[in-house]
Amino acid sequence: MTTPPLHPALGPLAFLLGEWAGTGAGSYPTDIRDFRYHEEVRFWHRGKPVLLYTQRTVDLDDGAPLHAEMGFWRPQPDDRVEVVISHPTGHAEVSAGSVVDGRVELATTAVTATGTAKEVTAVERTFTVAGDELAYELRMAAVGRPMTHHLAATLRRA
Amino acid sequence: MTTPPLHPALGPLAFLLGEWAGTGAGSYPTDIRDFRYHEEVRFWHRGKPVLLYTQRTVDLDDGAPLHAEMGFWRPQPDDRVEVVISHPTGHAEVSAGSVVDGRVELATTAVTATGTAKEVTAVERTFTVAGDELAYELRMAAVGRPMTHHLAATLRRA
Repeated sequence: MTTPPLHPALGPLAFLLGEWAGTGAGSYPTDIRDFRYHEEVRFWHRGKPVLLYTQRTVDLDDGAPLHAEMGFWRPQPDDRVEVVISHPTGHAEVSAGSVVDGRVELATTAVTATGTAKEVTAVERTFTVAGDELAYELRMAAVGRPMTHHLAATLRRA
Repeated sequence: MTTPPLHPALGPLAFLLGEWAGTGAGSYPTDIRDFRYHEEVRFWHRGKPVLLYTQRTVDLDDGAPLHAEMGFWRPQPDDRVEVVISHPTGHAEVSAGSVVDGRVELATTAVTATGTAKEVTAVERTFTVAGDELAYELRMAAVGRPMTHHLAATLRRA
């Protein structure tokens, strides 16, 4: 299974393609401690008009596995994008947003969850790519808290 | 990032672990043609009580990429499991079901979708593992059709 040519519809998202690695920090106004993590992100394609996306994080201090995500990014006309992301926490994040000049802004249109998952109401994400650096921020409304900063990381092309 | 020991909670799902490959066939009572596909499935873990799941298919005749899925399987007490799967079609499939004697039966508790995705109302899946063979069937209610057979495949441990 070799990689076919890039689908033209993926042009506006091509700046995301590749493997990225770096460090991030997380916090949330509940009883969780602030934490720092090492992260690996991969965006790739199979010749169709959709990006495949995976990421995984480990604790920066002891290397213990933390989070992981997997999903798909669907470019749309007029600098728009749709995103579907699965979480090991039992959540499915369905988002829409814009892609302009190396910057992606996403907001959930729906968050669904399995029966035992914690309550997550909404998620907002911003990704900014400049050259070989990808920075993102994630805000979240969850477990009764309003939309609040949760994660920020800066990655470099691996 | 080496693989840590299997989390005890994953014991009941351990028969799924590994890489699987084989062929399948699809049909649906819309205007799509019946189709056959080659499929690769991978179940793995990172030491936490969740299975990571990816699959991809290509056309059996010309090798063209068809579908892909990525998600997480969360074992629960009393032979239950929760599953979250992202689709490149813009759908997020959130399911619950049972795991008994190498057989998994799943039914969606929610299907959410991006704005441009086709209507999918519900999905049912059955996985059966016997030795090195994994067989599955997928039924779907979509675009106005009732719950109907859509996919079946038989894979072998790769």
